[in-house]
Amino acid sequence: MALDFSRPPHGVVPPLVTPLDEHGDVDRASLERLVSFQLDAGVDGLFVGGSSGEIALLDTARYRAAVEVVVGTAAGAVPVLAGAIDTGTHRVVEHARRAVELGVDAVVVTTPFYVRPGAAEIVDHFRYVHAAVDVPVVAYDIPSAVHVSLTPDVVAELADEGLVVALKDSSGDLAGFREILRRTDLPALTGSELFADTAMQVGAAGIVPGLGNVDPHGYVRLHRAAREGDHRTAAAEQERLARLFRITTVADRSRVGFTAGALGAFKAALAVRGVITHPTTNPPLRPLNDDEMRAIASVLAETGLDPVRAS
Amino acid sequence: MALDFSRPPHGVVPPLVTPLDEHGDVDRASLERLVSFQLDAGVDGLFVGGSSGEIALLDTARYRAAVEVVVGTAAGAVPVLAGAIDTGTHRVVEHARRAVELGVDAVVVTTPFYVRPGAAEIVDHFRYVHAAVDVPVVAYDIPSAVHVSLTPDVVAELADEGLVVALKDSSGDLAGFREILRRTDLPALTGSELFADTAMQVGAAGIVPGLGNVDPHGYVRLHRAAREGDHRTAAAEQERLARLFRITTVADRSRVGFTAGALGAFKAALAVRGVITHPTTNPPLRPLNDDEMRAIASVLAETGLDPVRAS
Amino acid sequence: MALDFSRPPHGVVPPLVTPLDEHGDVDRASLERLVSFQLDAGVDGLFVGGSSGEIALLDTARYRAAVEVVVGTAAGAVPVLAGAIDTGTHRVVEHARRAVELGVDAVVVTTPFYVRPGAAEIVDHFRYVHAAVDVPVVAYDIPSAVHVSLTPDVVAELADEGLVVALKDSSGDLAGFREILRRTDLPALTGSELFADTAMQVGAAGIVPGLGNVDPHGYVRLHRAAREGDHRTAAAEQERLARLFRITTVADRSRVGFTAGALGAFKAALAVRGVITHPTTNPPLRPLNDDEMRAIASVLAETGLDPVRAS
Amino acid sequence: MALDFSRPPHGVVPPLVTPLDEHGDVDRASLERLVSFQLDAGVDGLFVGGSSGEIALLDTARYRAAVEVVVGTAAGAVPVLAGAIDTGTHRVVEHARRAVELGVDAVVVTTPFYVRPGAAEIVDHFRYVHAAVDVPVVAYDIPSAVHVSLTPDVVAELADEGLVVALKDSSGDLAGFREILRRTDLPALTGSELFADTAMQVGAAGIVPGLGNVDPHGYVRLHRAAREGDHRTAAAEQERLARLFRITTVADRSRVGFTAGALGAFKAALAVRGVITHPTTNPPLRPLNDDEMRAIASVLAETGLDPVRAS
Repeated sequence: MALDFSRPPHGVVPPLVTPLDEHGDVDRASLERLVSFQLDAGVDGLFVGGSSGEIALLDTARYRAAVEVVVGTAAGAVPVLAGAIDTGTHRVVEHARRAVELGVDAVVVTTPFYVRPGAAEIVDHFRYVHAAVDVPVVAYDIPSAVHVSLTPDVVAELADEGLVVALKDSSGDLAGFREILRRTDLPALTGSELFADTAMQVGAAGIVPGLGNVDPHGYVRLHRAAREGDHRTAAAEQERLARLFRITTVADRSRVGFTAGALGAFKAALAVRGVITHPTTNPPLRPLNDDEMRAIASVLAETGLDPVRAS
Repeated sequence: MALDFSRPPHGVVPPLVTPLDEHGDVDRASLERLVSFQLDAGVDGLFVGGSSGEIALLDTARYRAAVEVVVGTAAGAVPVLAGAIDTGTHRVVEHARRAVELGVDAVVVTTPFYVRPGAAEIVDHFRYVHAAVDVPVVAYDIPSAVHVSLTPDVVAELADEGLVVALKDSSGDLAGFREILRRTDLPALTGSELFADTAMQVGAAGIVPGLGNVDPHGYVRLHRAAREGDHRTAAAEQERLARLFRITTVADRSRVGFTAGALGAFKAALAVRGVITHPTTNPPLRPLNDDEMRAIASVLAETGLDPVRAS
Repeated sequence: MALDFSRPPHGVVPPLVTPLDEHGDVDRASLERLVSFQLDAGVDGLFVGGSSGEIALLDTARYRAAVEVVVGTAAGAVPVLAGAIDTGTHRVVEHARRAVELGVDAVVVTTPFYVRPGAAEIVDHFRYVHAAVDVPVVAYDIPSAVHVSLTPDVVAELADEGLVVALKDSSGDLAGFREILRRTDLPALTGSELFADTAMQVGAAGIVPGLGNVDPHGYVRLHRAAREGDHRTAAAEQERLARLFRITTVADRSRVGFTAGALGAFKAALAVRGVITHPTTNPPLRPLNDDEMRAIASVLAETGLDPVRAS
Repeated sequence: MALDFSRPPHGVVPPLVTPLDEHGDVDRASLERLVSFQLDAGVDGLFVGGSSGEIALLDTARYRAAVEVVVGTAAGAVPVLAGAIDTGTHRVVEHARRAVELGVDAVVVTTPFYVRPGAAEIVDHFRYVHAAVDVPVVAYDIPSAVHVSLTPDVVAELADEGLVVALKDSSGDLAGFREILRRTDLPALTGSELFADTAMQVGAAGIVPGLGNVDPHGYVRLHRAAREGDHRTAAAEQERLARLFRITTVADRSRVGFTAGALGAFKAALAVRGVITHPTTNPPLRPLNDDEMRAIASVLAETGLDPVRAS
């Protein structure tokens, strides 16, 4: 069956973590296993270099390595999206072109940050990126990270002008998500781990769950049930995944920051499951400690997640 | 007289704008004129690639060009600091090493952002950068941009451990600034355009005013008066500079964002004064319009700023 | 049929506006008509003195008048809830006792505000109020107004200890709402006008929609469909109500604040529909102007809402 | 010497705590002693029912009792200001009239809160209060509590129209404070405990320091030195007071909220010094524990504050 890469991103598209080795370099073997694990589970796309991929903490060499491995391992089985996430237009174009050279199918772009752009300047940002890059652009709303929102008005303008092919909405704001679905034809994927079933039911084109790194099978089941209109099954799966999401709150917040607690837990769980070798995160994130690792293992057991057999 | 570059940054250290030509590339001639204008005014250092330098909007080539021109034009007359401002440790080290290769005397580093670091991780960040970079590091507190604060506790730890040689405080929080001065011996420079005289009086080691691009002579006079204990003269100069700062509020905020209004005004005023050729800013910032340019010219006239003669 | 007032609040419970006459006093006749309009539409309870009731802008006399009229007009047909919303415990108890004397069936209480309470102090607040007041207490999460959140942890503690009989969640945070439903047996009503259907589907006990003032029939239909598992009908009704909600964005935000734009629109629409006589709001809210009134009338027409016949 | 009560508030005007007895009622004897302690120290006015007075946590009876005692004990020696601090215009007028009946010389009023007012509505709020109340009104900027700012533009309008006789600025924003001083003739008092000397030097009309409850002599010395242009002495006193202010950070923030830690510390220190009998705060604030009380006693000793002899 020929894949239709011209179709916008849809379905389950996990934002892959970037596994590191004991020296802090990209652990290519672990990343290959992670990609295979995801493909075996039946995901519809792969997103490398997103927030869960510690994009903000990667330098050029690590970014390039991660994209290379994912594109190479996916080998055309599903589309590969890459984050081109940075503070300003020139920097974003620089990342995007690098990703395109490495063979990705689309790039994912936030509003500018550090600077404080106006609404018209946010639209201009996407105009410039759209014009400068040879693959489709996905708009990424993540106000918790960039402290600027992609409002429904701005998204409507991006959609009307054809500057982006989809939206990834990690705002947590269901009302805004529905307003965008009501006002535009833009495919909108939710970044919510916790109301993916609801998002699907109200019309999401897909799910981009960080927790999908750990349990892609769960999100694939949820997505399939939701698509088939079986809301009860989707909701039951969602409830189990919400319990699994508690791995992101085990870390002692007086010791590590929010991001280390969340991304660190994804990596820790993948290490416990045997998918990646080390739970190492990029500096300056601090590693989880043994107690926290045990707590994560315990949550995995409670939610039915066993170690993964080599495929 | 031999310059003592081992002395931490002090005095008036303007965070230079990055002039662009009509194509949006670094306008080397304008940047050279800007550096000469600052040196003629008697500044004590130059800061390239800071917030006023649109660091968040520069790609590698433009960053490199700006640093090269400033280092080359300064030619050892005063120390050159360069921003190594980015979301994570690896990225910051990448920028910092690039700047060091180009000959800067120190690098200026914020907390990580986009990610949400804990206090210990912020200290770690400076540990890593300190270890990786061959020049002194200046800590930069700018919560309006990075949405994380360098608290007095964190700064005290940075100082105690010798990880940074100075602080640039753009928090606007005078109480916190004084707490740092009380608790540490760290030289602390204020980023405030509006209470530079006060900051000097309570013990600041210097001033890093974006507005200093436009009127370095004013800040040099303010600094000299403050250092000599002539608070009345310093305050009078400060009042004039506060009136001049109104150039940052002329832009229509329904048309451009906050950053375009502020940085755009610095460049506009420098163009009006004849120091740089074009007021162009990097995408996606929008240019000021003719009415706004005229309003800026009018503020310059009211505060006694004439066009600059070629030096 | 005897009403069971011991049952916690459930179903559609509109937070009534407080109609005023041309002198700014409570317009008792309009409020009576509003209550009748709501009862005719089949609502399951009435909430007087909530955010939509301009509780923050009422003095004692107006508060008392509003509660009296609603209790008197409802005459036991449905339970009446009253807001006891204020900055601290003593003040809340003072309001709550007043409301209880006037015959309300439950009081609705937020976290303390103006002060910055810790989590344990928030629980204590509800302990004190629970002990001091003779009717059930409903916890009210509205961080947009009080700038403190009722976290799932706090709500779980309130539920475990039996301090409150229900939650009104106006946080807009569906993930948190579902976490509360998962972790407690507490009936939880949503304050969202825009995802009431979703909230019902995931297990909400009811809906407290400000927009329900204007179109109670719509929310009653939505609620009935949702309860019967007819999600398609509920969603269609929700979509129409979302279009109706655009009345809250017609006001020019450079002229009036957010609250005047939203509450003012509810009153304006009720005046257009002939339910209340004047769209007047309490000082210092500014009235909508003629253009805005016309825009509201136009939205009402587009969403199928005619003037109401006297019942 | 006859007092000139027509002169706007100026000098040191401590925002008095409201001492409570073991039952949580106003401890009139302690409040009388506190007032005498302040008058003996030479303060220029008294502010009852402010943030430090736990205004947000007082009911009508406790508010009335506190105002009565302060007015009675001051007995015309200095002007008495009372907070009329609430969410909306009608409520504020209700409090203000009560305070005026009890004999206060001025009322202190914030922006509306809970609601989200626009700039014009904030000005209207002060118009209404000014028209409704027979004593002068002081505008109170405290965004940390009300989450709305009194911008320089709004304050300039209040001043131009003669709606307020002074500003109390607790924003922590020195640049904004100076802008107001530059743009208006309005007497502006700072609420900052930590840069009172600076505020005086740049033109403040006075100081309203919560910490002044504990050490009025210190603030009176600071104020006198500042007024006489002896900045060195003022700064030295300020440094000692900044060290004393550490009493507000001894409380364990995982146990009590921010407000309990700060106001609780003022009361604890006054109890240690023997000025008031109990350190009790209003519900739902939690009391400091023995360790925290000891830590406060230790800071008092280090900063030279002995128990107070009965006057």
